[in-house]
Amino acid sequence: MKGAVIHGARDVRYEERADPKIVEPTDAILRLSATCICGSDLWPYRGINPTTEPTPIGHEYCGIVEEVGRAVTSVKPGQFVIGSFFASDNTCPHCKAGYQTSCQHRQLVGGAQAPMLRVPLADGTLVATREAPPAELVPSMLAASDVLGTGWFAADAANVGPGKTVVVVGDGAVGLLAVLSAKQMGAERIIAMSRHEARQNLARDFGATDIVTERGDEGSARIKELTKGIGADSVLECVGTAESMRQAIGAARPGGYLSYVGVPHGVQLDGQELFFTHVHLHGGPAPVRRYLPRLIELIESRTIDPGKVFDLTLPLAQVAEGYRAMDERRAIKTLLRP
Amino acid sequence: MKGAVIHGARDVRYEERADPKIVEPTDAILRLSATCICGSDLWPYRGINPTTEPTPIGHEYCGIVEEVGRAVTSVKPGQFVIGSFFASDNTCPHCKAGYQTSCQHRQLVGGAQAPMLRVPLADGTLVATREAPPAELVPSMLAASDVLGTGWFAADAANVGPGKTVVVVGDGAVGLLAVLSAKQMGAERIIAMSRHEARQNLARDFGATDIVTERGDEGSARIKELTKGIGADSVLECVGTAESMRQAIGAARPGGYLSYVGVPHGVQLDGQELFFTHVHLHGGPAPVRRYLPRLIELIESRTIDPGKVFDLTLPLAQVAEGYRAMDERRAIKTLLRP
Repeated sequence: MKGAVIHGARDVRYEERADPKIVEPTDAILRLSATCICGSDLWPYRGINPTTEPTPIGHEYCGIVEEVGRAVTSVKPGQFVIGSFFASDNTCPHCKAGYQTSCQHRQLVGGAQAPMLRVPLADGTLVATREAPPAELVPSMLAASDVLGTGWFAADAANVGPGKTVVVVGDGAVGLLAVLSAKQMGAERIIAMSRHEARQNLARDFGATDIVTERGDEGSARIKELTKGIGADSVLECVGTAESMRQAIGAARPGGYLSYVGVPHGVQLDGQELFFTHVHLHGGPAPVRRYLPRLIELIESRTIDPGKVFDLTLPLAQVAEGYRAMDERRAIKTLLRP
Repeated sequence: MKGAVIHGARDVRYEERADPKIVEPTDAILRLSATCICGSDLWPYRGINPTTEPTPIGHEYCGIVEEVGRAVTSVKPGQFVIGSFFASDNTCPHCKAGYQTSCQHRQLVGGAQAPMLRVPLADGTLVATREAPPAELVPSMLAASDVLGTGWFAADAANVGPGKTVVVVGDGAVGLLAVLSAKQMGAERIIAMSRHEARQNLARDFGATDIVTERGDEGSARIKELTKGIGADSVLECVGTAESMRQAIGAARPGGYLSYVGVPHGVQLDGQELFFTHVHLHGGPAPVRRYLPRLIELIESRTIDPGKVFDLTLPLAQVAEGYRAMDERRAIKTLLRP
């Protein structure tokens, strides 16, 4: 088969790769219905995370089970399934506590920008839909695999609930779906921080009540102004840079909740500074598996339409252009059709 | 009157100071029944926080109201009261959210190692007991002013509850009272980290089920061993150094809760490292005011005896010896009788 391979900074190629095969009896092989490019794929694409050898890339996926190992019991060939970027056994103490991305046996799922994918620990990782979704729901199902699950975790980890004032830092796909998630959880006011008109519009569409264009300390000050000097109940940091974290901390009220769901790059927190903010902090790689059954339900019932976050769809063969479009912020998120 | 004044590193003097007077109509003047030396007073005592000019010191207090300003309505002369180190109005949005130590009008209460004390914002700060407590309860009432309230916040902020496995890092007075607090909140297992026999004994007396003597990474490893490789549900960091914070983070399970209640000194948290621990983090200056009514109740009913944490009692005139004893770890906590 042919799939995406990253060779170095700004060098993603569509090239011949070995077909995936069952390696462990707990594996499944999927034929992907759709895959996509993640904001976190841009870290190696931009050379910020170095690529030392050609590596198959991509970790968001949904599709039809093609084959399962002999130990797999919960999914079977022909079913439509969704899984997360970390395979998990879903039975260890960390999984049982809802932190499947800290599973004692977790394995990264890699090379998903391809027509076929091997998923380890299939029983603990994959969730099957009742039936194969109609084509128009596939983008939303794909979003559930990571970007929606991550936005949902951002809202959950920041204690979003009815009546809350919520700030979302970051207008990437995760930030936009964090807006959608906060809306679903009943937030009263959702302030999205964005300077891009298309993203502002999508944020409003997903439930944002206010848009703030200021950044950094000015951004924090604007949030304080909008909240009568109090600060927000919940701040969802969906970027992962030192600047965005600083802005997020500055936007929270004392006793407020701050979640961070993008892998931090160059973020150092000063203990004493954090201490006097009185903020609650929680985050990490989103335990998407915890939320998948609920998210699938919301998509199947057409209560939410997270697939709108894909504003560019390309054939997998044009994966390189998909990366360029996201790198240059011409696209929010690129869906790839194998 | 004569009270304690810090002049510089290891130089606390008992000397003449002006009698406190009502300055604002919201002030109260107390005649203190007892005061004490805090672990945090050792930061300036040891010269880690520099003292630039002679400064009255101390911030823990309980006693009889001597005089109130004309705007004070909730306490009156003759009542026995307890207050916290930050005066608060108890009406602003931060106070209403339970974060009185982030009150929009907060003021530090200083110079409490003295016979008399001015407390600003008396209505929002002071809590009166139903009647003056018998002498044997005064040490416990004094403990409620800070060290018990801080240990209680440590347990609350780390989500301690029935059935939980709790680790307390730090065997100072706050750590020991964090053990007591965790016990009151129903923790099943309380692991105290201590190398000092007297403190270990008091920890056991307050409810510790296990003692761990290892420190640093070895300490974290020992906690993992004691919890079948999982880590603790709640970790209470009651020291405030980089080493204790590191140890605390290493002791928590993914999705576990870590509280930190001692002012951090030299603590830098690496965002990416924290991210992958999946830990919840919360702390800050303990909002003791939030807990005072409940703590007073528990002391009055003799359900708890936090006063045991005072293992040295001296006349106020010997305040300098009180500091020396704590600095040299000969005493856990020194109570001073004005």
